[in-house]
Amino acid sequence: MANITIFGQGTMGKAIASIFTDGGNTVNFVGKETDAELSDIVVLATPYAAAESIIANYKDALKGKILVDISNPVDFSTMDSQVTPADSSAAEEIQKLVPDTTVVKAFNTTFAATLASKKVADSATTTVQIASDDEAAKTRLAELIQAGGLKTIDAGALKRSRELEAFGFLQITLAIREQITWMGGFAAL
Amino acid sequence: MANITIFGQGTMGKAIASIFTDGGNTVNFVGKETDAELSDIVVLATPYAAAESIIANYKDALKGKILVDISNPVDFSTMDSQVTPADSSAAEEIQKLVPDTTVVKAFNTTFAATLASKKVADSATTTVQIASDDEAAKTRLAELIQAGGLKTIDAGALKRSRELEAFGFLQITLAIREQITWMGGFAAL
Repeated sequence: MANITIFGQGTMGKAIASIFTDGGNTVNFVGKETDAELSDIVVLATPYAAAESIIANYKDALKGKILVDISNPVDFSTMDSQVTPADSSAAEEIQKLVPDTTVVKAFNTTFAATLASKKVADSATTTVQIASDDEAAKTRLAELIQAGGLKTIDAGALKRSRELEAFGFLQITLAIREQITWMGGFAAL
Repeated sequence: MANITIFGQGTMGKAIASIFTDGGNTVNFVGKETDAELSDIVVLATPYAAAESIIANYKDALKGKILVDISNPVDFSTMDSQVTPADSSAAEEIQKLVPDTTVVKAFNTTFAATLASKKVADSATTTVQIASDDEAAKTRLAELIQAGGLKTIDAGALKRSRELEAFGFLQITLAIREQITWMGGFAAL
């Protein structure tokens, strides 16, 4: 059994929490406080714009821990690009801020509704894509997600976050443009 | 009824041809010859590395036509990046070479086997994502693909080729790493 700390209680944070608790694990949420106790696994389920200040507050506390970044750094003012450099990703930028923390990318290619229902469009089991340079961290997170009833894909090194975030960005634009629904999207078959 | 010219008779070229012929259209293939007649719709179903020389040969003939780029410009020597600039895409680079041609991105997020069988992993109908700055060209191609028994998604402007190519690249790496199969992959549900 694991305890997982989640920053952010939006639809994504709540859906991710339910996966972990369904797997028999415990979750504690952190809101605006700046001195909360962190578990060994920490999920940053906040908008990318909030990442920097949270990490500044918790940089020491995050040392040696697994930090799961779920963000899609979309430029929401234009919906036409991402705010991260073209040759990087949110996960890689976050890793630079916390070099002594193991950053894992996950949950950014699955809409909140498909995490909550565990199904994409009421049919295929939702699959969480996971990328990290740390194989053990990736395996540990995959096991927790699978225990919660979802499938996982090992997407490779943290650098693959570039493609995962492009995937997430594309999927958001498709839902906004009503080409797919927020209960659907891309399922790994 | 339309006639479509396809450069390249690999598994992708052949699978795309069968979609068009299943829809009641005719296809002519072009191989190494440098003076073939081109139809109004031309599909570049060759590796990205071959695009530049083909376009150099056919630049005048391509004026006013629709050119469908299906490429995934993966650096196959490393399988860790793409050969195109990080802030561009194969489709955008090709558009720069033929400013008087309407470039449409399509077919790069669907494996050849899922085009040939029209199913992803024998279950969901294969969906072709299409991006272009020309709405009429996008609609025309979508109708031809739908007539051949597949679904289509309007992925937006040609700039979205960046995300479509990241999606295609990711999907190829996942198949190589046996996280998905070449008969499966991501289905739009």
